[in-house]
Amino acid sequence: MTTLQQWRDHFEALRAYDEAVALLYWDMRTYMPEQSADNRSKSIGFLSTESFRRRTGTAYQTLLEAMGQETLTGVEAVSYAKAKQAYDRDSKIPEAEYQTFITLISEAESVWEKAKDADDWDLFAPYLEKIVAMERKFVEYWGYDNHPYDALLHDYEPGMTVAELDPLFAELRQAIITLLKQLDGKTFPTLDWSADRETQIRLNHEWLQDIGYDFTAGRLDETVHPFQTTINRKDARVTTKYDENDYRNSVFGTMHEAGHATYEQGIAPELDTLGLGEGASMGIHESQSLFFENFIGRNQGFLSARYAGLQRAIPSLTDVPFETFYAAVNEVKPSLIRIEADELTYALHIIIRYELEKRLITGELEVKDLPAEWNRLYKEYLGVDVPTNAKGVLQDVHWSGGSFGYFPSYALGLVYSAQLNEALRRDVAHVDQLIADGTLAPIKEWLNVNIHQHGKAKTPAELIQAATGQSISVQPLIDYLTAKYTRVVEAL
Amino acid sequence: MTTLQQWRDHFEALRAYDEAVALLYWDMRTYMPEQSADNRSKSIGFLSTESFRRRTGTAYQTLLEAMGQETLTGVEAVSYAKAKQAYDRDSKIPEAEYQTFITLISEAESVWEKAKDADDWDLFAPYLEKIVAMERKFVEYWGYDNHPYDALLHDYEPGMTVAELDPLFAELRQAIITLLKQLDGKTFPTLDWSADRETQIRLNHEWLQDIGYDFTAGRLDETVHPFQTTINRKDARVTTKYDENDYRNSVFGTMHEAGHATYEQGIAPELDTLGLGEGASMGIHESQSLFFENFIGRNQGFLSARYAGLQRAIPSLTDVPFETFYAAVNEVKPSLIRIEADELTYALHIIIRYELEKRLITGELEVKDLPAEWNRLYKEYLGVDVPTNAKGVLQDVHWSGGSFGYFPSYALGLVYSAQLNEALRRDVAHVDQLIADGTLAPIKEWLNVNIHQHGKAKTPAELIQAATGQSISVQPLIDYLTAKYTRVVEAL
Repeated sequence: MTTLQQWRDHFEALRAYDEAVALLYWDMRTYMPEQSADNRSKSIGFLSTESFRRRTGTAYQTLLEAMGQETLTGVEAVSYAKAKQAYDRDSKIPEAEYQTFITLISEAESVWEKAKDADDWDLFAPYLEKIVAMERKFVEYWGYDNHPYDALLHDYEPGMTVAELDPLFAELRQAIITLLKQLDGKTFPTLDWSADRETQIRLNHEWLQDIGYDFTAGRLDETVHPFQTTINRKDARVTTKYDENDYRNSVFGTMHEAGHATYEQGIAPELDTLGLGEGASMGIHESQSLFFENFIGRNQGFLSARYAGLQRAIPSLTDVPFETFYAAVNEVKPSLIRIEADELTYALHIIIRYELEKRLITGELEVKDLPAEWNRLYKEYLGVDVPTNAKGVLQDVHWSGGSFGYFPSYALGLVYSAQLNEALRRDVAHVDQLIADGTLAPIKEWLNVNIHQHGKAKTPAELIQAATGQSISVQPLIDYLTAKYTRVVEAL
Repeated sequence: MTTLQQWRDHFEALRAYDEAVALLYWDMRTYMPEQSADNRSKSIGFLSTESFRRRTGTAYQTLLEAMGQETLTGVEAVSYAKAKQAYDRDSKIPEAEYQTFITLISEAESVWEKAKDADDWDLFAPYLEKIVAMERKFVEYWGYDNHPYDALLHDYEPGMTVAELDPLFAELRQAIITLLKQLDGKTFPTLDWSADRETQIRLNHEWLQDIGYDFTAGRLDETVHPFQTTINRKDARVTTKYDENDYRNSVFGTMHEAGHATYEQGIAPELDTLGLGEGASMGIHESQSLFFENFIGRNQGFLSARYAGLQRAIPSLTDVPFETFYAAVNEVKPSLIRIEADELTYALHIIIRYELEKRLITGELEVKDLPAEWNRLYKEYLGVDVPTNAKGVLQDVHWSGGSFGYFPSYALGLVYSAQLNEALRRDVAHVDQLIADGTLAPIKEWLNVNIHQHGKAKTPAELIQAATGQSISVQPLIDYLTAKYTRVVEAL
């Protein structure tokens, strides 16, 4: 068997393990009978370990060396380069330290949960101190050219650097704060957001049909903590939950997850056996979900074309004019909790975490000073007073899991989605009309050609450059937000 | 690590693979989006092969040898003995011949499908000749004491022999034919069996709740070809299908599969890591599904207590007296197709196949003479003329898959279920009342203590002897059928 064939077989084997583990997990979160939990966890653990061994064991090392001897071109060369880079990066951390880290974050996650529930910062702080100390060490093992935080960014947004992010985030922050000032004193309409479960289920299915989510290569199911999961390349599933007091989470959350799933459905299947069958980065992935959530789901024409149907389904909307509904859906309200933030202020939450993470990693900021600094930035950027650490520094799970460098992806997703939206409108005629009509094929096709199909065979920067003709820029997002909130304000 | 711990780890690993493959398969047959099929088949194939390697590879051989050196007692000794026996049996077939066989049956199954559709015996016959020739060789490799067919029976009903089966089946056949004669000239009522899908779904859930099927360790879902599958010991799932023209298949089929699932839920979990966490035999497994289907689901008191509910759910029953309904549900009608057979004549279908299989294996009968012999026995035992081979010798899939020795399990299931029913009524008071009331806990407990918990740590003969105080006997089945059809006839 040729080395290349062995290489493909290796990734096909990993794909099979991934499919099994993803399905075991999806089922656990949707349909599994309760008594199944113990055995299920053991099976997931066992198969994940088997898969991990194949990704790291001596057979793989030998194969990697053999591939290094081959003359490779095109996507096969990319496959090898990415695999080699990941392997080299992983092997820089001494195994004993990696084990310590895994144990630490596994403990820290449950301590964080308790600390958040009890609003007890002191309980969590010692764990976070250890985690930050290890992140600092890892950064030195991995190495970096300019800024230690670059080594962490790399895991989630390959090629991204502090030198590039700093000015982008500064510009974005300033623009949002300016827009916020313009909204000052405006009052958004208050609506009744309740809708029964059956109505929400029906709306979700209708909307996903409308936007052309491919139900022959996916599903929509109910769960407690919604997620998107890829069972295999043609089986990208969406989950959602139904809050009868507020249907916004369900309808927009489902659009969001369907964006992730549509990306996954569109990756060229042949990339799977080269280890390239996944999103280019967390930021690019998030750009697709945010594109579906904001640029389709919250599109004025999309909502307006469906408003009569919404009014029939949800009696409390009967006497609400569309303009009032649209303004209410787009309410801006600086708040404490990131995952409840509106479209405009969301990026400020991310920028705060980015700034804190960066300074924690360089040592400019120590864990003990984190709550005070958190509260200061929330006041400065969002104008809100943080009453408790549970609603402040303790609100996110990420740090307890050692995920430093991940947060910027959320804001990068916003930035990319606006760049793609602008480029799409340059290349495809009558985008708003297509969205209103639910004739999304040309839009999906454009996203597929420019983003989806490439999987991670291209870097985020390559994708954005090729799709938009420009490098990363926050201007399209600022223009979009400015135009949108000018329109929203007019209706208030 | 001790050898025993390695032994348990080996089976725990197999359990994890089994869980993954079972769930991948269950999902494929219930919820999987259609485009997922190709990848899914590959993943199932890959993981099954991985699991097969662990069951047969050199690491397992070494472990088996090490276990042979241990001093084992109790269930651990049984575990080793069963594993050693299976290994020895498997290694008697030369690998090349086994490969040829696998390829042959895989081709034969699709040829059989075409042959059945086209009613073309000549298309299938050459494949069946090769399969029978290989079965005859395998039997010689495996060896046997008295009759070559014993070597095949062993796979499905350990310990069962032709010497034991022949008189049992002869007695049963004679009794059924006698009962059939008494029914001659009687006319069963004709009912409208249609019910809408929602009604059937509701009935199924109600009845499974009534009989105490444990939904916290199982589920009920819809599929095309219903089956029961065990994802893990506490996750034994039932599937069914809904024919709006005939609800009998759904309601009694679901009771049947729930019997299999209740058995699986009741096996002691600690047997899983000894390779003993499965049914004692196909016959014992079938006895549990038939017990739930016939002795509970078709129990007069069970149906009578639920008849008012049935009448409310199914308007066509409004004016039908219960006695008429009960007679109609228990209609006896000798027919061509095994899977549509009634409770009384079902065993005759099995006995025909048993006699043909036995003679094919000894060489008393050749494949070319099979259709004529099939038709002769259907006329003799069931009194029906076989119009086409599609409705005759080609109707079952089993022979195309090389499953010789399996059919007797179906009749053994009937025989065992009646023996267990009799013993249960000896040990537990007011069984009919419990069934009518849907208070099945004492019945499930009795089955659990006597059958379920033991998994395959005991042989079928040991289980039946211990539960009933007797060896295998067809008398309880004959008594039950005689009493039942006497009652049914009285109502005609």
